[in-house]
Amino acid sequence: MNITDLKQKVNPNEVSHQMYQLISQLYPICRSITGNGFRETLHWISKHIELTKHEVPTGTQVFDWTVPREWNIKDAYIKNSKGEKIIDFKKSNLHVVNYSVPIHQKILLDELNKHLFTLPEHPDWIPYRTSYYKESWGFCLSHNQLLELEDEEYEVCIDSSLENGYLTYGEYYLKGDKPDEVLISCHACHPSLGNDNLSGIALSTFLAKYLSQINLSYSYRFLFIPGTIGSITWLSLNESQVQNIKHGLVLTCVGDSGKSTYKKSRRGDAEIDKAVTHVLKHSRQEHDIIDFFPYGYDERQFCSPAFNLPVGCFMRTPHSCYPEYHTSADNLDFVKPQSLADSFSKCLSTLHILENNKKYLNQNPKCEPQLGKRGLYGAIGGQTDTKITELAMLWVLNLSDGDHGLLDIADRAGMSFDFINKAANALLKHDLLIEKPE
Amino acid sequence: MNITDLKQKVNPNEVSHQMYQLISQLYPICRSITGNGFRETLHWISKHIELTKHEVPTGTQVFDWTVPREWNIKDAYIKNSKGEKIIDFKKSNLHVVNYSVPIHQKILLDELNKHLFTLPEHPDWIPYRTSYYKESWGFCLSHNQLLELEDEEYEVCIDSSLENGYLTYGEYYLKGDKPDEVLISCHACHPSLGNDNLSGIALSTFLAKYLSQINLSYSYRFLFIPGTIGSITWLSLNESQVQNIKHGLVLTCVGDSGKSTYKKSRRGDAEIDKAVTHVLKHSRQEHDIIDFFPYGYDERQFCSPAFNLPVGCFMRTPHSCYPEYHTSADNLDFVKPQSLADSFSKCLSTLHILENNKKYLNQNPKCEPQLGKRGLYGAIGGQTDTKITELAMLWVLNLSDGDHGLLDIADRAGMSFDFINKAANALLKHDLLIEKPE
Amino acid sequence: MNITDLKQKVNPNEVSHQMYQLISQLYPICRSITGNGFRETLHWISKHIELTKHEVPTGTQVFDWTVPREWNIKDAYIKNSKGEKIIDFKKSNLHVVNYSVPIHQKILLDELNKHLFTLPEHPDWIPYRTSYYKESWGFCLSHNQLLELEDEEYEVCIDSSLENGYLTYGEYYLKGDKPDEVLISCHACHPSLGNDNLSGIALSTFLAKYLSQINLSYSYRFLFIPGTIGSITWLSLNESQVQNIKHGLVLTCVGDSGKSTYKKSRRGDAEIDKAVTHVLKHSRQEHDIIDFFPYGYDERQFCSPAFNLPVGCFMRTPHSCYPEYHTSADNLDFVKPQSLADSFSKCLSTLHILENNKKYLNQNPKCEPQLGKRGLYGAIGGQTDTKITELAMLWVLNLSDGDHGLLDIADRAGMSFDFINKAANALLKHDLLIEKPE
Repeated sequence: MNITDLKQKVNPNEVSHQMYQLISQLYPICRSITGNGFRETLHWISKHIELTKHEVPTGTQVFDWTVPREWNIKDAYIKNSKGEKIIDFKKSNLHVVNYSVPIHQKILLDELNKHLFTLPEHPDWIPYRTSYYKESWGFCLSHNQLLELEDEEYEVCIDSSLENGYLTYGEYYLKGDKPDEVLISCHACHPSLGNDNLSGIALSTFLAKYLSQINLSYSYRFLFIPGTIGSITWLSLNESQVQNIKHGLVLTCVGDSGKSTYKKSRRGDAEIDKAVTHVLKHSRQEHDIIDFFPYGYDERQFCSPAFNLPVGCFMRTPHSCYPEYHTSADNLDFVKPQSLADSFSKCLSTLHILENNKKYLNQNPKCEPQLGKRGLYGAIGGQTDTKITELAMLWVLNLSDGDHGLLDIADRAGMSFDFINKAANALLKHDLLIEKPE
Repeated sequence: MNITDLKQKVNPNEVSHQMYQLISQLYPICRSITGNGFRETLHWISKHIELTKHEVPTGTQVFDWTVPREWNIKDAYIKNSKGEKIIDFKKSNLHVVNYSVPIHQKILLDELNKHLFTLPEHPDWIPYRTSYYKESWGFCLSHNQLLELEDEEYEVCIDSSLENGYLTYGEYYLKGDKPDEVLISCHACHPSLGNDNLSGIALSTFLAKYLSQINLSYSYRFLFIPGTIGSITWLSLNESQVQNIKHGLVLTCVGDSGKSTYKKSRRGDAEIDKAVTHVLKHSRQEHDIIDFFPYGYDERQFCSPAFNLPVGCFMRTPHSCYPEYHTSADNLDFVKPQSLADSFSKCLSTLHILENNKKYLNQNPKCEPQLGKRGLYGAIGGQTDTKITELAMLWVLNLSDGDHGLLDIADRAGMSFDFINKAANALLKHDLLIEKPE
Repeated sequence: MNITDLKQKVNPNEVSHQMYQLISQLYPICRSITGNGFRETLHWISKHIELTKHEVPTGTQVFDWTVPREWNIKDAYIKNSKGEKIIDFKKSNLHVVNYSVPIHQKILLDELNKHLFTLPEHPDWIPYRTSYYKESWGFCLSHNQLLELEDEEYEVCIDSSLENGYLTYGEYYLKGDKPDEVLISCHACHPSLGNDNLSGIALSTFLAKYLSQINLSYSYRFLFIPGTIGSITWLSLNESQVQNIKHGLVLTCVGDSGKSTYKKSRRGDAEIDKAVTHVLKHSRQEHDIIDFFPYGYDERQFCSPAFNLPVGCFMRTPHSCYPEYHTSADNLDFVKPQSLADSFSKCLSTLHILENNKKYLNQNPKCEPQLGKRGLYGAIGGQTDTKITELAMLWVLNLSDGDHGLLDIADRAGMSFDFINKAANALLKHDLLIEKPE
C-alpha cells in the first residue's frame, strides 16, 4: 500500500475519534518542559507508535542554552485562614505557575497578590503562566476567585522539586526508500491545554501510525519535544544529520473550529510551502497563508539562519488569535473532532504531494503524441465540451521537460495535484513518460 | 517601401473586402485534413500569392503520427421511404461527418439514429463533426430535422473514398534581409465554416500578399495546413530549419465581432508576446491576453516541449467561447468585414514592431545631448506644457544603453511603439544613436 | 554626536524658520544660469556653510554642451507714449524673459506683442520665461496688464549684457569616515520663485549646516548649480570621482503645502529609493512614489545612461502639477514653514537610514540565542501580549545572515527602521551581532 491508497482508504472522521481519545487521556497530565508529566505523555503516545525516548542530562550545553533542571510537582494549594483549600492544583494543574519553585508558608493577602495571575477580561477562566528561566513561584486563578479573597492570612504550598535530572523527548523514525527526510515536530510541554498542543500531539501520533503501515519514498521523523529548549536540544544533538531534512511541518493548534492557517518557512518558496498552499487552495475552504516571522513555535529554531530548514507551521487559528489561547478555556470542548479530521486530511494530502511530486520526461517531446491510438483520447473530434482529462494529460506532456515537477504543473494548469498525478500515471503506463533520473 | 510605409498607405477596410471575397470563394468547398477540397482551397489562395504546394504520401511517419489516407467525397444523402432526399450533402457539406467511410444501405431509424448528430440547444443549426482517427460514418443535421424523422426505413449514401494518397499543404516563403523567420500558420482543413477558419486563411493570405510588396528585415513563412497533423507533418519534415523561427503567430477565428484575444506562447515572455500585448493595449479597445495552455490550435505543436517555439495565437473570440463555433451558424454572415480589417491592422502593427524593434546605442550617453542646437528641442524653455515628443526622444536616449529595445522603451515610457520609433528615427538622423552591433 | 542624536535633538520647526529667512533673503535676487545674481545667492548661502565657489569660463566644452556667456542685467522697462513705466523690472524680475539680449528702442504694439508673454487663465499672474539657447528678448506680464495696453508706440529697454565670463556654482564637501559619498543637489538659477527652487536651496543649506556639526560615516557633497548646464558642467569636470557617489538626492519644490513625492532613480531599486520609500511609508502621511522618467530636474543628467547614478528626486508637488509653478504666484506666501520643516525631517530621516543601514552577522546563528539570560527578554513566558521589542530583536537575529541590511529587515518585518536599528544596537551591546566585514 502506498500513500495514494492510504489517502483513499482512510476515513479521517474515524481517525479523529482516535485522536480525540488520545487527547482526552493526555489532558489531565501536568506537563512541563521537563519532568515526569512529559514522560507520562510519551508513555501514552507509545501505545500507538514505537517511540524512542531520549533523556538529556541537566546542564548539557545546547548551543547558547543549557538543559534546565527537571521539574516535578506532587501537589499545590492555597488555604484560607479556616484551613479551606480555595485553590487546589488537583482540580486544575493550570493553578500553579508552571516550573514554580517549592514553597510552603503563611502569607498575607498583600504579599500573596504579587504571586497571583488572573484574566480580568475573562473572569471565569484560569490563565496559563510559566516561569522557566527565572526562579519564581505563583498561582493562577479565575478573576472571580481573586475578587472573593478576603484580607487575611493564607497558607500557600507548592510541593514541587527543581533538581538535576533530564530533559525528555520522544522521537519516531520511519525509514522510507531514501534517506531524505520529512520532519514532523510538535511541542508536548503544555499541561491541560487541549488545542495548544494536545491537538498537535495527537495529529503527529496518528499521522505517524498510519504512515507506518505503508510504503514510503521519504523517511519520516516525528519529534515530541518541549517547546524552544526541545528543538534547540534536538538540533544541537543532531546537527550533522540536519541536511537530510528536505521538508518539514510544525503541527500546533490543529483542533479548534477556525479556518486552516499555514505559516511559510523562512525560505518562503520551499516545496513544502507550495504543497500546503496547493492543498489549502484546492480545499475550496477559507484559509490563510502567512509569511514567516521569527515568533511562534519551533519553526523559529528550525528556521534560524544557520539551519534555514524548509519547515513551515500548520495550524488552524494561530496562537494569540483566539481568546481561549493559554487559558483553562482551551479545554476538551474547545477541540473539535471534525477539525482534527480536517487537519489530518490536509496534512495527509500534503504528504501525498511530497511523496508523488516527481519530475518526468516526456518521451515524445516533439509535437504531441497521438493519444487516440493508445485509447487515451476521445477519437471523435470536433466536440465543443472541454475534455478536462485530456487537458490534464496535455499539461503533463507539455511541461514534463525536466524543469517542472507535477506540483508545478498542477499549479500552472490550475488543476488539483491529484488530477494531474492521475494523468501522469496514465501516461506512464503507456510509456509516454519516464521519471527524470536524479 | 518598408513596413512603416505599408502601414501608413494600406487601407485595412479595402483589404478586408478582398479578404471577404476570398472567404466567399472558399466557403462552399468541402475541405478535410486531406483530399481535393484542400487542394482546391490552395488553388484559390494561389491566385494571390505564389504558394508552394506540398504533397506528403499516406503512411509517412511524422514523429508519433502517421500521415492518414486521403479522403474524398462526391455526394451524400439520406432518402426517406418515398425516395425524397431529406438530408443532402450538396446543400451543406457539414451534413456529413467529416472523414466518414463510404456507405450505401437501407437502414431503420433506430439504427440510423446512432449515426446522427444534432444540437438540441440550437435546433436550427447543423453541427460540425469529424472522425479522423477512427473509421466511422455519420450525418449531422438540425435538431428540427431530426424531430421530423419518421420511424421508417431510410436509404443512406456516403459516396466517399478513403485511399492511399497524400496530405496536402501550402507554404509561402518570403525572403527578407536575414534568415531569421517569422512564422504565420493557419489551419485550412475545415469545410463550410467562416470564422474557423476561412477568416484565418484570408488574413494569412493578404498579410503575405502585402508583405511581398515591400522590403523586409525578417524572412516570413506562411503555412496553410490541416490542423494538428499538418503542423506535426511540417515540423517533422523541417526539423532542421526550425531554429530559424524567431517569432510566430497562429491565426484563427479572426473575423467574428468579438474583442481581440491573444494567447501567449509557452514561453510567456517572448518578443512576440510583448509585441501583440503592446498592440492590443495601445488599441484602446477591450481585449484579452491569456496564458498559454496546451489545447487549441497548432500552437500546441509549435509549443511542444522539444520545440518550444515563440509562437502565440491571435484570434478574436476563442474557440468554444461562442455558440456558433463548429456549427452551420459560423457562416458568411458571422464573419464581419470590419473585424477582418481590424485583425489585419493589428497583425500588421505587430509585424511592424518586430521589423523595427531594434536596440540602439546612445552616442552621447554622458548627460543629455543638446537637442536644441540640432533643432530637435524647443529652444524656449520654462514652458509648462508637457512636450511629449521631446519626452519620447529623452526616453530613447536614456534607455538606449544596449540593454533595451524600442519595444522595451515604449513599454517603460507608456508610449506607443510608433511614437518611440519616430523619436528614435529623428535621433538617428542626427547621429545621436547607432544601431547596436549584433 | 552622530546622526541619531541629531535626529532626536534638532527641532525641524526651528530649522524651518532659519530656512524661511534664507528664502526671504534670496527671493528678490534676479538669478539666471550665469551672472551676478547667482554669485549673490552663493554669498548668502556662505553665511551658513563654507561653500566653495567655482567659476567655469564661457566656452568651456562640457560633454555635448558649451558653457554659455554670462548674463547680467541692470534694469528693464516698457514705457508708454506718455513716458510712464508700465512694466518695471525693479518691481519684479520675472518681467524680463530670463537671459534676454539687450535692447533699447521704440516699437509699436503689434511688434511688441510678439515679445510679450502672459497667462490668460491666471490673469493676475506674471509667467516665468527663459531663452537660454536662442538669442531673443521679451517681457512677461499679467494678462490684465496686457489687456490694458493701447495701440501706441512704446519704449522698450532691457539693460542687460551677454558677454564672455563664467558659469558659477557652489559646492560644499563634508568629509565623513569613508570616501563613499552622498550627493545632494539643487538648482539655484531661478529668479523670484519661492518653491522652485529657493525651497530646495534652503533645505540643502540647512541639511549641510546641521550635518557639519556631527560625525558622519559617509562623506557628503552639496551642489548649488544652475539647472541642466550646471549638472552637466559638474559631471564633466568631476567625471573621475563620480564613482564615489553611492546615493543622491535632487531637492526641489520642497516648500509647498502638497504631499511629499519621491521620484525614484533610474535604477528603481537603489538603496536611496528604498530608504525614501521607507520614510514616506512610515510617515503615515499621504505621499507619492513615482518611477523615474527622463524629464524634470538634474536627476536627468545624474541618471543619464553612462552615469546611471543612484540619485532620486525628493519634492512635494511635482513641477507642472501646481498652477503656481513658474509664475509670480510661486512667491513667499506659497512656501509654508511647516512644509519646509516636514521636508527637512524626512530628508534627515532618509540620511539617518543611509548612515545606519549596515549588515550584521548573527553570532549565534544556530537556533535563537537565549535573550532572557542577558536581560533582553521577558523572563516570564506564556503571556499573550505581543512583545514587539523582542520581535524586533528576533527579526534582526533571524535575518542577519550577511544578505540583509537593517533596512531590508525593517521592510520585511513591517517595522520602522528606527525600531529595528534600536533592536540591533541592543544586540550589538551583548555581542550577539558583529558588523559584517566589507
